Amino acid sequence: MSTEKSFAKGSAAPGPVPEGSIRLYSMRFCPFAQRTRLVLNAKGIKYDTININLKDKPDWYLEKNPFGLVPTLETPAGEVIYESTITCDYLDEVYPKKLLPSSPYEKAQQKMLLEHFSKIVPYFYKIPAGKKNGDDVSGLEAELKEKFSNLNERLRKKKSKFFGGDCITMIDYMMWPFFERLEVFDLAHCLDGTPELKKWTESMMEDPGVKASMLSVDKYKAFFKTYVDGKPDYDLDL
Amino acid sequence: MSTEKSFAKGSAAPGPVPEGSIRLYSMRFCPFAQRTRLVLNAKGIKYDTININLKDKPDWYLEKNPFGLVPTLETPAGEVIYESTITCDYLDEVYPKKLLPSSPYEKAQQKMLLEHFSKIVPYFYKIPAGKKNGDDVSGLEAELKEKFSNLNERLRKKKSKFFGGDCITMIDYMMWPFFERLEVFDLAHCLDGTPELKKWTESMMEDPGVKASMLSVDKYKAFFKTYVDGKPDYDLDL
Repeated sequence: MSTEKSFAKGSAAPGPVPEGSIRLYSMRFCPFAQRTRLVLNAKGIKYDTININLKDKPDWYLEKNPFGLVPTLETPAGEVIYESTITCDYLDEVYPKKLLPSSPYEKAQQKMLLEHFSKIVPYFYKIPAGKKNGDDVSGLEAELKEKFSNLNERLRKKKSKFFGGDCITMIDYMMWPFFERLEVFDLAHCLDGTPELKKWTESMMEDPGVKASMLSVDKYKAFFKTYVDGKPDYDLDL
Repeated sequence: MSTEKSFAKGSAAPGPVPEGSIRLYSMRFCPFAQRTRLVLNAKGIKYDTININLKDKPDWYLEKNPFGLVPTLETPAGEVIYESTITCDYLDEVYPKKLLPSSPYEKAQQKMLLEHFSKIVPYFYKIPAGKKNGDDVSGLEAELKEKFSNLNERLRKKKSKFFGGDCITMIDYMMWPFFERLEVFDLAHCLDGTPELKKWTESMMEDPGVKASMLSVDKYKAFFKTYVDGKPDYDLDL
């Protein structure tokens, strides 16, 4: 976890990426950038981090990544890779200790599960936003529970500790950042009827890479408050 | 191109996939399923096709693919793979004659371009829908032209015939089905200011796999009319 303050519009671009290293453009509280950090950590890759002020982006950053999102990777050769799953697949191909299965079908299964999971992600934004507006979010929460129940069923049928088997693999790291934030979003109760999924979250928290990338619930909550107030404090506590 | 009528709700499930073959669940006019057909053809893979009535889906199909979309692949071992890009990547890994680059960075570049292209796809639906409603679509068309201009710029800078270089590769096949439908959607004029992109469409039409998967503009138009009228005729002319 980088403790460098974020780069905003008007800031000078950082220097070149040192040989033998790779650079991650990130935002400390972003779950998508955390996916890439998890993979970097799991594979023991040497990297430096440049945090980006996503509310007031440097022009030089938009030149590297026209979507203006994080994560983005940059190599010493100036190669730029963005979109969280693309960065993670790239790292997995280039560096040793494979996180994706070598079997094309098992790889496809992980990609399909990720596609299902991508339909879950919006609930992590819609439910807190609805609550802030004073809306009744019980319908959305019931839908989220239903989706968690499907994930639970997969683990139950597979009889395995993780989604790819008994070892942690890519798919676990891709889903984890959102589960880490359940308590921050007051959604931990949505795991009540899904014992296998809850056990998976406990197994995940024992992983050294997951531990290294975690922030305290209090810190997330403090950031999240500034975020919903429209003034995200990317440099909170730095 | 299969000439079998589509399977609807209540139909008996097709028999097992023959050994040495692979099965494509498709819909004759679907651009996403065409992606998979292009890859199957380009790699010379033996396959059979089951067309699905997407307005009235068989229960057995929803059990195979809970999203209920096409394309879906099924192997003789009963392995099921869905989502167009996942099916294409799977085929590329399993069968010879690689369409994706072997370099992880070049592969990431194709995936990033596909991500940009995914922001173009909705225009192919929004503009015709807007026209049907009698809306002014000039703003949407201007946005589409701007996006085409970005694609043109890529080809111009790369000085290559196709998006991955001088040979046709995966990214070309992923984008093609939508360009094939430009005339059907009365959007061919959006290519007027983009000579390199127009030339790419001409090069694409010379590819044997593209030729084999093409339908006439008249046939697409006839289907599209039934589609916008809310009664898609999946078995048109069969």
